[in-house]
Amino acid sequence: MVYLRNAWYVAAWSDEVSDNLLTRKILNEQVLLYRTEAGELVATANTCPHRFAPLHLGKVVGDAIECPYHGLRFNDEGRCVFNPDGDGRIPAGARLRTYPVTERLGAAWIWMGDPARADLAMIPDFEFLEDPSYRTVKGVLHVRANYRYINDNLMDEAHLHMVHHNSLACDMVRRAKTELVKDEGGTIWANRYGRDGAPPAIFDMMWRMTRGDYEGTMDHWVEGGWKAPCFVRNNTGVVLHGRPREEGLETKNAHLLTPETESTTHYFWAICRNFRTDDAELDEGIRTGTEYAFVHEDEVMLHAVQEAMGDREFWSMKPALLQADIGAVELRRTLDRMIAAEQAGQDAGQAGRPQPARSAESVG
Amino acid sequence: MVYLRNAWYVAAWSDEVSDNLLTRKILNEQVLLYRTEAGELVATANTCPHRFAPLHLGKVVGDAIECPYHGLRFNDEGRCVFNPDGDGRIPAGARLRTYPVTERLGAAWIWMGDPARADLAMIPDFEFLEDPSYRTVKGVLHVRANYRYINDNLMDEAHLHMVHHNSLACDMVRRAKTELVKDEGGTIWANRYGRDGAPPAIFDMMWRMTRGDYEGTMDHWVEGGWKAPCFVRNNTGVVLHGRPREEGLETKNAHLLTPETESTTHYFWAICRNFRTDDAELDEGIRTGTEYAFVHEDEVMLHAVQEAMGDREFWSMKPALLQADIGAVELRRTLDRMIAAEQAGQDAGQAGRPQPARSAESVG
Amino acid sequence: MVYLRNAWYVAAWSDEVSDNLLTRKILNEQVLLYRTEAGELVATANTCPHRFAPLHLGKVVGDAIECPYHGLRFNDEGRCVFNPDGDGRIPAGARLRTYPVTERLGAAWIWMGDPARADLAMIPDFEFLEDPSYRTVKGVLHVRANYRYINDNLMDEAHLHMVHHNSLACDMVRRAKTELVKDEGGTIWANRYGRDGAPPAIFDMMWRMTRGDYEGTMDHWVEGGWKAPCFVRNNTGVVLHGRPREEGLETKNAHLLTPETESTTHYFWAICRNFRTDDAELDEGIRTGTEYAFVHEDEVMLHAVQEAMGDREFWSMKPALLQADIGAVELRRTLDRMIAAEQAGQDAGQAGRPQPARSAESVG
Ligand code: FES
Ligand code: FES
Ligand code: FES
Repeated sequence: MVYLRNAWYVAAWSDEVSDNLLTRKILNEQVLLYRTEAGELVATANTCPHRFAPLHLGKVVGDAIECPYHGLRFNDEGRCVFNPDGDGRIPAGARLRTYPVTERLGAAWIWMGDPARADLAMIPDFEFLEDPSYRTVKGVLHVRANYRYINDNLMDEAHLHMVHHNSLACDMVRRAKTELVKDEGGTIWANRYGRDGAPPAIFDMMWRMTRGDYEGTMDHWVEGGWKAPCFVRNNTGVVLHGRPREEGLETKNAHLLTPETESTTHYFWAICRNFRTDDAELDEGIRTGTEYAFVHEDEVMLHAVQEAMGDREFWSMKPALLQADIGAVELRRTLDRMIAAEQAGQDAGQAGRPQPARSAESVG
Repeated sequence: MVYLRNAWYVAAWSDEVSDNLLTRKILNEQVLLYRTEAGELVATANTCPHRFAPLHLGKVVGDAIECPYHGLRFNDEGRCVFNPDGDGRIPAGARLRTYPVTERLGAAWIWMGDPARADLAMIPDFEFLEDPSYRTVKGVLHVRANYRYINDNLMDEAHLHMVHHNSLACDMVRRAKTELVKDEGGTIWANRYGRDGAPPAIFDMMWRMTRGDYEGTMDHWVEGGWKAPCFVRNNTGVVLHGRPREEGLETKNAHLLTPETESTTHYFWAICRNFRTDDAELDEGIRTGTEYAFVHEDEVMLHAVQEAMGDREFWSMKPALLQADIGAVELRRTLDRMIAAEQAGQDAGQAGRPQPARSAESVG
Repeated sequence: MVYLRNAWYVAAWSDEVSDNLLTRKILNEQVLLYRTEAGELVATANTCPHRFAPLHLGKVVGDAIECPYHGLRFNDEGRCVFNPDGDGRIPAGARLRTYPVTERLGAAWIWMGDPARADLAMIPDFEFLEDPSYRTVKGVLHVRANYRYINDNLMDEAHLHMVHHNSLACDMVRRAKTELVKDEGGTIWANRYGRDGAPPAIFDMMWRMTRGDYEGTMDHWVEGGWKAPCFVRNNTGVVLHGRPREEGLETKNAHLLTPETESTTHYFWAICRNFRTDDAELDEGIRTGTEYAFVHEDEVMLHAVQEAMGDREFWSMKPALLQADIGAVELRRTLDRMIAAEQAGQDAGQAGRPQPARSAESVG
């Protein structure tokens, strides 16, 4: 499997990383994460360059990581700085691979490609993750499916009424057409709007819980915006029919995917709300509901798709596409172009620029 | 692994298929089985042509199958007849693969090859499965071995005294020579006959149970008849020594194999008897005994053979054959010819016609 | 994976083999071990040459092994001597592969290469295993790592202070240089000596237990001697500082590795001591301690190295070597030469002869 390498991926939520060593497989590479005494993030390979012991079984000593097998220590640049054995001479070639890392949006980001090209501007602009007027509930799940099927799923409003029929299903949205929008920031949006009808059960419940009973119908929006290679932001909300969106209830959600292997993905999720921002009980309700929906509804399906597809390439299967796939198709083609450009030694970012939109008709 | 594709295989016993969706892997393809409202059998691929969800997680709606992911419905010919999403347009290329199916002999048969060549006359003529004067006990087992090793086992009377030493073992049969017969219907028979001796323990018990004590010796027959690609019928019975076979106790058995993968097989078995045909307790005794013998005696051995052989081709291992292998060898060569003919675009049925019999001596 | 084939490997400890059939995979071949009525060892393939049943499910009848499937019996030379079926004719080509075996040093040794080249002189000269003045505790463990990583580990004194920090760790040894010695018998030694300091915790405890309290410091030696392809002897002991070694406490240990597969190894270990030779309680303490150290300390690390390395070749990973690796490097190069010679049809023994020693500096 070929991944986009010159890209930032989420290695962990920030609060997962401490001087307790965290190891995670990312793009098929076993990575080690820890913090220096000053709290700086470090990401290295997890395999010692001496005789290949797994460093996550070692420990952090000062700012260095100590190998559990023979005690060599490597600093945050991967240089061997201590050998406890014999005359203590530092072996010449002992160099531990390190990765560029940074913290932003509450997450530890890792750059898996050419370090010289690491560019902080390429981290997705999901500003709501740091907006103090939002309350965030977040977590990480392990998905037994290739990240591209999850990308598709997150940009796909047509599965809501089938897969999440007790929570997110909404008849207005089911009958709506997906609108494709490419914004100036390079985000590809697949949006659906429902007007003057019944909201999804989950929003009906949240409205009653936070604002009390209501009369009449609602307007409802579901917007999914993708940034390469595998980040989806999602605005989903309701407002009394005809009222401005600002009066409504909305969650902004982040879905940050990190390929683990060809058939598995780390899925970092965050649900951010601008209501009841100090309600810890609601936090737990959101966590439980989100994990239930994902694990018992989406993941089952995504894993089954993965099993059915195996290593086969998506287009080779000649999928029978719907109008609803317009967003997923656009992002898949964009990502295909970017990976092809990178493999050809060209600028993936350039290849990822929006192309003239195909009409929705050409997809379905 | 190359299978004979232009052939009927048992997909299920008839009573396994209802509007509860049944999925089973057959010749490495994941198949879905269900019934229409009129009770007609339908067999399709289990993977939705839209975005490859597993259809067995969906449900039957009228005569159609509804995909669990986005709700497309496919009728019994595989055509998409409903799209619940957006404007409801049916996607142009949405075609679900279907397989020819039919019901016969109490089983659902599926044709895995070119639909144009499906020929009901190729279903094996195991008429006793539908004979009202016989009482049938049947089941299905999962075997962790290639179907060809099971074919061999079923045609092999030389393993009875070793593997089934408490039930089917018979010293007369052990010392008999296997007789190879090819009948006009294209069945290859490997038969053994014992005269004037002690019957197997299982028949001694059944005789005493159904007819009371007896004096003197018995005659005993074990006949195994193979039809391509993997169906074995089996006549096994006893009669008081010298009396006509019609006076005896006999079971006619069907062993219908369906390759699941290269190393696993669905084994549909049926034991049919012409005595105590209304004794439900005897049914349970037969079921328990058959499953015990197969699971704890044959399957252990067959799985171990599979493990020892792996992907290696049988002849490449230069087996040291016995006279008792004459039937298994004949069927293996016949099946080899048929598969080779089919691969070459020729008529496998023609290639399966009986060849002049080799003498038993040439095998052992 | 290419193994050295013209070599003896330990198939089992002698007391593991009886007329209870023992099967073990050695160099990826499934071997069967049993004893004749006279107690002679026999080693054969575990797969019947008739139709490939696993012989370990059969039984020993006299001096022959009886196949569980059709009852053919094979004598200790692999010849078929009995066929219970039909006319009892012995199939012409029925020949069961046998392996040269011998018993020595309390173990059953098997020759995996050309039988004509089997040479008893190639069994390693670990005479202490048969020395009546030593008391032996022994066992066998299953290791999820290639045997070469275990070879390295056993010749590596630099891991003691890290991996076995509660038992074998010794600061004197940690700070010592590894001395490489090649003796006339073809053994490659990697030795370390500590003088005038604190002994490892395990020896301090054993000294107090067997000789009582002591004053002052100790001298300590750790010597590891390798013989091809995967046998390590180990002398490790302490004596009061300045006193002759003969007055000390010493264990001589044997580590006999048998590759099972590319990624797993049978590890036959023996700890021999010349003190408290009739103390059965101490035996149990040694067994528990050895298994704990190996299973919970070494094996964890070795398995993790195996996982990190997968199929990759050691040198291709450009290990950053330490002075402490001088022994492991020498044996690895020696074994590389021997395997290459054998593959080229040359004399591996000749290739295994000691080469002029590299200076220790050239390794670290
Ligand atoms: S393997 Fe890490 S220090 Fe030796
Ligand atoms: S995957 Fe079946 S309808 Fe979409
Ligand atoms: S398989 Fe061993 S005797 Fe037939």
